[in-house]
Amino acid sequence: MELDLSADAAQLTAAIVDVPSVSGDEDQLCTAIESQLRRLDHLSVERFGHCLVARTELGRPERVVLAGHLDTVPLAGNLPSHVDGDRLYGCGTSDMKSGVAVQLRLAAGVPEPARDVTYVFYDCEEIEAERNGLGRLSRTRPDLLAGDFAVLMEPSGCEIEGGCQGTMRAEVTVTGQRAHSARSWMGRNAIHEAGAILDVLRRYQPREPEVDGLRYHEGLNAVAISGGVAGNVIPDRCVVTVNYRFAPDRDIAAAEAHLREVFGPWDVAVVDAAPSARPGLDQGPAASFAAAVGGSPRAKLGWTDVARFAELGVPAVNYGPGISEIAHTRDEYVEIAKIGQCEARLRHWLTTP
Amino acid sequence: MELDLSADAAQLTAAIVDVPSVSGDEDQLCTAIESQLRRLDHLSVERFGHCLVARTELGRPERVVLAGHLDTVPLAGNLPSHVDGDRLYGCGTSDMKSGVAVQLRLAAGVPEPARDVTYVFYDCEEIEAERNGLGRLSRTRPDLLAGDFAVLMEPSGCEIEGGCQGTMRAEVTVTGQRAHSARSWMGRNAIHEAGAILDVLRRYQPREPEVDGLRYHEGLNAVAISGGVAGNVIPDRCVVTVNYRFAPDRDIAAAEAHLREVFGPWDVAVVDAAPSARPGLDQGPAASFAAAVGGSPRAKLGWTDVARFAELGVPAVNYGPGISEIAHTRDEYVEIAKIGQCEARLRHWLTTP
Repeated sequence: MELDLSADAAQLTAAIVDVPSVSGDEDQLCTAIESQLRRLDHLSVERFGHCLVARTELGRPERVVLAGHLDTVPLAGNLPSHVDGDRLYGCGTSDMKSGVAVQLRLAAGVPEPARDVTYVFYDCEEIEAERNGLGRLSRTRPDLLAGDFAVLMEPSGCEIEGGCQGTMRAEVTVTGQRAHSARSWMGRNAIHEAGAILDVLRRYQPREPEVDGLRYHEGLNAVAISGGVAGNVIPDRCVVTVNYRFAPDRDIAAAEAHLREVFGPWDVAVVDAAPSARPGLDQGPAASFAAAVGGSPRAKLGWTDVARFAELGVPAVNYGPGISEIAHTRDEYVEIAKIGQCEARLRHWLTTP
Repeated sequence: MELDLSADAAQLTAAIVDVPSVSGDEDQLCTAIESQLRRLDHLSVERFGHCLVARTELGRPERVVLAGHLDTVPLAGNLPSHVDGDRLYGCGTSDMKSGVAVQLRLAAGVPEPARDVTYVFYDCEEIEAERNGLGRLSRTRPDLLAGDFAVLMEPSGCEIEGGCQGTMRAEVTVTGQRAHSARSWMGRNAIHEAGAILDVLRRYQPREPEVDGLRYHEGLNAVAISGGVAGNVIPDRCVVTVNYRFAPDRDIAAAEAHLREVFGPWDVAVVDAAPSARPGLDQGPAASFAAAVGGSPRAKLGWTDVARFAELGVPAVNYGPGISEIAHTRDEYVEIAKIGQCEARLRHWLTTP
């Protein structure tokens, strides 16, 4: 398996797509990429499992990171890739092997960028968080992810998606008093009282704050509810699990304080949380990037690996040629023109002092 | 193990209590009772497993049934029985071996009652309904339970408890539309919408109708609730299980119609139901019984085996010396005076034409 990094970006995307790399099974693709990168004298290359880190070492005053994951969701009878009109179809075309192809074209074709570049290729993004290759690198070799700015090549239709919303799950518990249901008035029904929690959720007006120039949209929702002792017992406990998606003007502590305020009368226990990340597009290298690639930046509402960079103190955005709405579908495709457009814009940015 | 049916009712109660008979383990007590009953020439005795049916066959125009269960809840270190002041303590003293002792005293001591009597002793009343000995007899030998009136010797403090409320469980389901919780407004949260079901339950005003002169008290309660797909998914389904306890002026069909009316907007599926039973104390042999034993009849709110007789077309009441509120507790006792009082009143009724 020989990849040709001099082929155009669409051809290179098709070649990469045709090497299956479902999460955990990235070895073949990783090795094919590694062998090409090691031929490039202007890059220092290190491999960790199914992750690759390739860096220019030009002593530039600024360093940027371009990161993409190699894995895909399971195949759905949608390989090998095929072209239909101006689209390239196949598993991973949008999410995100077209982005990986752009990374490789830049790695090979821009030997002397105006800013030093770290190219990161990682595994297991599509499965449980603890196996995520970028997370592993951030714990074991944070030095390799250091930089002034990072671009995740996730599908965004060649528009900047800035920052990401945080997420917190909490259990809101209401207690009552058991009784036999034939004499229900001797007890206090915790499920009935949980109606007041659902009232709060139904009345809740989510914030839509603007942060660093981008508009976010929060959400507070019950994602589970459970209660009940037996068919003839007034229940003394009901638990509502809520999921709070919070904009990046709030950190985890502020999100928890908000939940405790909203659910004041009840017991609130945080189950898990992942931080938000500010877009930061209005200053520093992120602003230079936004100016160079243009378009209409928008807020990222879901949680993404951008937050891992934010935790390392590296501002980051999503920017890639794919289409996020059709990711993970059988009919996944990428618009061929977007791949070249994405490559051209990033090349312009990397080569402009 | 020899029972002395000529001992006074309190001594006989103690002797019966001291033969442990936790549900499923009634053999020894059943055999001890059987051997005494078979010595009584005025009774025809049949045994079915751990059930006994003993009948007078005097050709009287009216037949009544006196029924009691032999089993108890599990022991709680409260055997052997002991007397403290005017109370007899021990497992089953109230529920309902004092009632069984009264049955046996009457079976032995009233050889020529004014109305024919069927004495029923049965097993497994304290556990799951399908093992209930009275239920089994009603399916296999309903002829043996036939009669104009029945008295269940359940603890009622020597007051008539008439009829019983029915019970129905139903699942009320609300549906929504899934979405990723980062974009919750793309979906419709079924758990939030279940808040409207809980609103209905919280606003619900239970009826307290008078039926055949007794005051009942209904109840409509959530006894379980469940919903949720995953921590990051807007749930598309929430199920509230409700328990409706309905007065005996409603049958199962009327109860179901009521639930469908109350929960009109949602899907309602009946899970199980047990019928109510009217007290019927204002007419026929039940009225004669009430007149003979006196006191202040009250409504039975819980479901009892009275309803099994009602299903066979036999009016029935609870009437026994025990105290229902302390049944199933470690400190269960019976007031010794009540045992003799109960026996005397029933003897008066059985011997009065």
